[in-house]
Amino acid sequence: MTVSILKHVPFFSGLNKTELNKILAIAGIKKYAADQMVFAKEDLGNNFFVVKSGRIKIFTTVGSDKKKTFAFLKKGDFFGEMSLLGCKTRSASAQAAEESELFVISKKNFKRLILENPEFTLKVLHTLAERLSKCNKDIESMLFHNILGRLADAILELSKDKHTSPVKMAIDQNELAQYLGTTRVPVCRAINTLKRSGVIDYHRGELIILNAARLRSISGKTN
Amino acid sequence: MTVSILKHVPFFSGLNKTELNKILAIAGIKKYAADQMVFAKEDLGNNFFVVKSGRIKIFTTVGSDKKKTFAFLKKGDFFGEMSLLGCKTRSASAQAAEESELFVISKKNFKRLILENPEFTLKVLHTLAERLSKCNKDIESMLFHNILGRLADAILELSKDKHTSPVKMAIDQNELAQYLGTTRVPVCRAINTLKRSGVIDYHRGELIILNAARLRSISGKTN
Repeated sequence: MTVSILKHVPFFSGLNKTELNKILAIAGIKKYAADQMVFAKEDLGNNFFVVKSGRIKIFTTVGSDKKKTFAFLKKGDFFGEMSLLGCKTRSASAQAAEESELFVISKKNFKRLILENPEFTLKVLHTLAERLSKCNKDIESMLFHNILGRLADAILELSKDKHTSPVKMAIDQNELAQYLGTTRVPVCRAINTLKRSGVIDYHRGELIILNAARLRSISGKTN
Repeated sequence: MTVSILKHVPFFSGLNKTELNKILAIAGIKKYAADQMVFAKEDLGNNFFVVKSGRIKIFTTVGSDKKKTFAFLKKGDFFGEMSLLGCKTRSASAQAAEESELFVISKKNFKRLILENPEFTLKVLHTLAERLSKCNKDIESMLFHNILGRLADAILELSKDKHTSPVKMAIDQNELAQYLGTTRVPVCRAINTLKRSGVIDYHRGELIILNAARLRSISGKTN
C-alpha cells in the first residue's frame, strides 16, 4: 500500500506525509462481499474502520425482525470508534451493502493515533458531533413529524451526495422502510402521495426528485 | 479561583497540575438563576460550558409548544461543544433547571485545549461516543417500545445517579412528558399502570422505585 491510496480517502486528507506513513504502517485492508457482516451489535469491538471503497450499512435490530438503518457510509467515512471509546460492545451492526474494502486499525493503534495526532482527533470529534446532531434531529423528526415528513427527510439525507440534476438514485422500498424504522406498507403509501403531488417520481427502484424545494418544505427543513 | 475547585469537578479530574492551571487561566465562571436560558437552539455558538454546580436542561422545541428534553446535566458534565465542532449554530437549547454555576471557555481556548491536551480530548471523545450511543438507544426505544417501555427507560436513566435504597426522586409529570417528547396524559396513564403493578410509587411529585428489576425488564434493558 502506498501513501497515494490514503491521500484519496477524504478522512485522511489534511494529514501530512509523516502522519500518512504512520497510518500506512498500522492499517490493514480487508475486502467484504455484498451482504457480508463486518460486525454485529453486542460483539466485542476491537477494530476501527475507514471505508476505502463500497458502501457500508449501519443498523440495529430489535427482536427477530425489526430493523432500523442509522446510516449508509461511503469512501472516507469511518465507523467502529464507539466501542473503542468506552462502550465496550458494538452499539450497532455493520454490513457491506455492496462489495467493499475497508482500512482496519486495531484498538491499540487507534488510541495511539488519537493521542499523538491532534488533527486526526479533531476530525473524529467533528464527525461524532455531526452524527450526534443528526441523531438528535432524527429524534425530533420522529417525535414531531408524520411519516410523510420523515420520508421527505430520509430522501433528502440519502440523496445528499448525488449531484445530477434532477437527482436520481436507486433505492428500494424495504431499504427506505428500514431507514425510517417502519414497515413497507406505510412507506409505499407515502411514496405514492409524493408521486401524486409531483414531488418525486419512483419507478422500478429508481427515485427521481422532481421538486426539491417542496421536498424540503415537507421535511420541515428550512436550509 | 484555585486549582482545588477544578479538582472537584469530575470532567477535569485526570488532568495534571500544569493542565489545570492552563484551564484556570482561560475559564470564567458564570451564575444562572433557576429557569434562566444559557443559550437557545439556532443561536451562534461561541462558548463551551462545564457544570460547576446545579442542573442544566438540554432540550429542543418544535413549533411553539412541543418540547423534547435530551438530558439533564450535573456537576462535571459539559455541553456546548457541538457548535464549536462544525455545526455553527446551537443544535439544542440549554436552560438552568435550578440555580447553577458554569465554567465558561471560549471557542478559541476550547480548540487550543483540544489540540494541546490529548487527555482532555479523549474525555470529550468518550463523552460524545456515550451520548451518541444513548441517542441511538433512544431512537430504538421510540421505534420499538410502547409508552410504558419508554417511561421505564426514562425513569431508569433519570435515576442513574441516585444511590438511596429504595431510589427516590423528585420529578413532575410535565418534565417526564418532555423527556419522552410526548404530552402529560399518556405519561400520567403509564405512571398509574406502573403504580398499580407495584413497580413504582408516585405521590405529589416524588417517585419511588419499588421494583427495579421489573422496571428494567419493562424497559427492555438486560443489563
